[in-house]
Amino acid sequence: QVITKSELIEYYDISGCYILRPWAYSIWEMVQRYVDDRIKGMGVQNVYFPMFVSNAALEKEKTHITDFAPEVAWVTRSGRSDLAEPIAIRPTSETVMYPSFAKWIQSYRDLPLKVNQWNNVVRWEFKHPQPFLRTREFLWHEGHTAFATREEAEVEVMEILAMYEYVYENLMAVPVIKGRKTEKEKFAGGDYTTTVEVYIGASGRAIQGATSHHLGQNFSQMFDIVFEDPATGEKRHVHQNSWAITTRSIGVMVMVHGDDKGLVLPPRLAAHQLVLVPCGLTVRTTEEAKRALLDKCNSLAAELRACGLRVHADLREHYSPGWKFNHWELKGVPVRIEVGPRDMAAKQVVAAIRYSGEKRTLPEEGLAASLQALLDSVQSEMFARAKAEQDARLSVCPDLASLCAALDKQHLILAPFCGDPDCEDLIKKDSARNAIVEEGVPSMGAKSLCIPFNQPDEIGPDTKCVHSHCGRKPQFYTLFGRSY
Amino acid sequence: QVITKSELIEYYDISGCYILRPWAYSIWEMVQRYVDDRIKGMGVQNVYFPMFVSNAALEKEKTHITDFAPEVAWVTRSGRSDLAEPIAIRPTSETVMYPSFAKWIQSYRDLPLKVNQWNNVVRWEFKHPQPFLRTREFLWHEGHTAFATREEAEVEVMEILAMYEYVYENLMAVPVIKGRKTEKEKFAGGDYTTTVEVYIGASGRAIQGATSHHLGQNFSQMFDIVFEDPATGEKRHVHQNSWAITTRSIGVMVMVHGDDKGLVLPPRLAAHQLVLVPCGLTVRTTEEAKRALLDKCNSLAAELRACGLRVHADLREHYSPGWKFNHWELKGVPVRIEVGPRDMAAKQVVAAIRYSGEKRTLPEEGLAASLQALLDSVQSEMFARAKAEQDARLSVCPDLASLCAALDKQHLILAPFCGDPDCEDLIKKDSARNAIVEEGVPSMGAKSLCIPFNQPDEIGPDTKCVHSHCGRKPQFYTLFGRSY
Repeated sequence: QVITKSELIEYYDISGCYILRPWAYSIWEMVQRYVDDRIKGMGVQNVYFPMFVSNAALEKEKTHITDFAPEVAWVTRSGRSDLAEPIAIRPTSETVMYPSFAKWIQSYRDLPLKVNQWNNVVRWEFKHPQPFLRTREFLWHEGHTAFATREEAEVEVMEILAMYEYVYENLMAVPVIKGRKTEKEKFAGGDYTTTVEVYIGASGRAIQGATSHHLGQNFSQMFDIVFEDPATGEKRHVHQNSWAITTRSIGVMVMVHGDDKGLVLPPRLAAHQLVLVPCGLTVRTTEEAKRALLDKCNSLAAELRACGLRVHADLREHYSPGWKFNHWELKGVPVRIEVGPRDMAAKQVVAAIRYSGEKRTLPEEGLAASLQALLDSVQSEMFARAKAEQDARLSVCPDLASLCAALDKQHLILAPFCGDPDCEDLIKKDSARNAIVEEGVPSMGAKSLCIPFNQPDEIGPDTKCVHSHCGRKPQFYTLFGRSY
Repeated sequence: QVITKSELIEYYDISGCYILRPWAYSIWEMVQRYVDDRIKGMGVQNVYFPMFVSNAALEKEKTHITDFAPEVAWVTRSGRSDLAEPIAIRPTSETVMYPSFAKWIQSYRDLPLKVNQWNNVVRWEFKHPQPFLRTREFLWHEGHTAFATREEAEVEVMEILAMYEYVYENLMAVPVIKGRKTEKEKFAGGDYTTTVEVYIGASGRAIQGATSHHLGQNFSQMFDIVFEDPATGEKRHVHQNSWAITTRSIGVMVMVHGDDKGLVLPPRLAAHQLVLVPCGLTVRTTEEAKRALLDKCNSLAAELRACGLRVHADLREHYSPGWKFNHWELKGVPVRIEVGPRDMAAKQVVAAIRYSGEKRTLPEEGLAASLQALLDSVQSEMFARAKAEQDARLSVCPDLASLCAALDKQHLILAPFCGDPDCEDLIKKDSARNAIVEEGVPSMGAKSLCIPFNQPDEIGPDTKCVHSHCGRKPQFYTLFGRSY
């Protein structure tokens, strides 16, 4: 397994739980740093709420709890004593936070209220667990905000979604499709959910990348979060959002870019952007020449580091250059720099590019600048390649037959769809049954991924919902595909 | 309650759980930033291990689990189904991490292994909970390291303790007494525990600030963490450390510096080091003059911010200057800057110092530099004041009678002590019974805090253990006091 060999993940003796090793956690830290700075710039403040929820709070919003209840883990004992009442572990923190929101918000002067926390949550799923993608405990941040008006809240929903788009497209080099979830797939208890969806070529399936929910006034009504209208003196319910991105994103990035040789990390999120490997030493190399080469590697590394590049010099003597090449390729370091005695003499280095396999000779003169330019181009080329693959996989299907055929061949389908949850169930069921099952491809049916903001076309006057039994006129094209 | 009024903490509907609001969490973020940078400089890498522990792993080290077992919270149910086996929530992560250490460490080349995580832990205590100081869930970081030799491990134990000393003394302006825990008080399963202990004047009690444990080879034997000796080829057990500082430290800082008016934050950990309040506006002030004053406040704030000071300009119009003074005093902002029309004309501001109550007039010319100097002196004076108080509370007691008397009057006692846990129990019991109980002072007995590295004196040839029934010759003076 690539993710264990590359030292991202270690398995654990409790099913559905995994260990994030430094190679994975450093990616998360870089995502954290970016998101944290950006939301602080928006006036969001970090907090920490308890991970335990009382049953009373958890049950306040009925739709919400109905959705989460089957996956909630319960603490019932401490030491050898049973607790008086079982206590839940948060699957998400709406019900943890909003009783406090009701206390903190009295006047319109207390608005907007914007808080965020970086924390762990638990969803005890019974589907087959998968590292990063479906884990019983995972890390995320969750932002929770409250506004006086729906308009302000809706502006923020889109700002946050744009931030997640940036994380995927500009940091992870992973293209996304932005849109709104259907009624069936939206966050339980919210008004609507916006999402960034990612296509994973290796499996032909799509996955939800991050979500930004507009909760409307549903939770504020249940939790009685009100403020006094400055004009009329009347009590009004606040308009709320919540939004999150999780460690799942690391797995998504790894799957989009990985290849037969292992990981391929985009330069902006690689803990080591460059790894420097001394080469060309033989049994005949003098101690002096060897010393000179190692000194050269150290001074080059220091110079590049001083220019802001993240460099690791692998000077270990008991491993061969070939072993090191494999090791760092498996770990996905974007660019390897090889330095040998002959390169030294010629005042040059060889740069091997992980994602393309290409090698280039670069002069020592101006090396930091040329490597920075190389890393920038690697970043944008990785994105372009993934974007081209995603675009090539999109097809517009007017009816169920073409949807079923495209599901196996094209994977991503834009279809006119009425939006009815029952109809959505039928599409899933019938596309699973009708699917032309190829070897190794699961025959699971099509799931709605989102209603893309970027629509392929206007809905024509005679267009009907994609499911043949429906007959209703849809408002939008909806993106369908097999999903994680 | 100061901690709720100053918006550090909000109470929660589960006993022993509290909400860390932005005012408290920002302090934690500054501690995190410092510790994280410093340990990364030592070669420590961040990771994340699951919060769940199987019973099998938890029980591997017997002394360890015996100590923690009564406080472990158990998950026994998910949704409506009972789990096949109850799963524990980590009270600390030795037993979570060390099975992986055994996999990752094979050769001496894999050493030292140094990992850390920032996370939550749960200890379901039944003593009366207290915000920050005794909470059922708390945040901390926990570092876990493994070395080939005991010497290397012991060097690190002291480096980490020096880091915690720095956090308390240089960031929090809180003096500590460094030392080693007695056998009775050391970390369960470890070889020895080093600690920084803090005296809290308001209660006359002491509290453990942070600990750095040398685990020896106890855990490596239980978890079979071995490496091959490069010289002999033999399997050898690694030498381990673990170390942690928790959100309790925020509460300690707050108690050491707080006064009747509320919090007093040290400049280095204050989210707002300076708060700027426009003053001197009356009903007769023209719109133009008012506008000019607010502009002045904004431009001053921008200028100070550009010089690296953390400034908040409180320009809210519906609150009076007096209300704002109280508000920011309660929240402990180190320095308030008052700007009025007359100050403006005279090109000066008034700086009010929270910890001393003093006011100073400062010229606008060179304001950033004079405020930085003022904040630096506030930081060092706060430390000096707390240190003087702690020193004044220390007394050396040769026997139980003087210890009992000093416990109420001096609070901190250095006494020659043999180190035997049974004798320590007796000292606690007998000092509680003999204590001269004053009103409001609990009659709890003296607990050992640490064996200070800085000993008051050599142990004389005729010195006996402080407990009259003992008669053994002690090796060291031990610090005793009432403790949290």
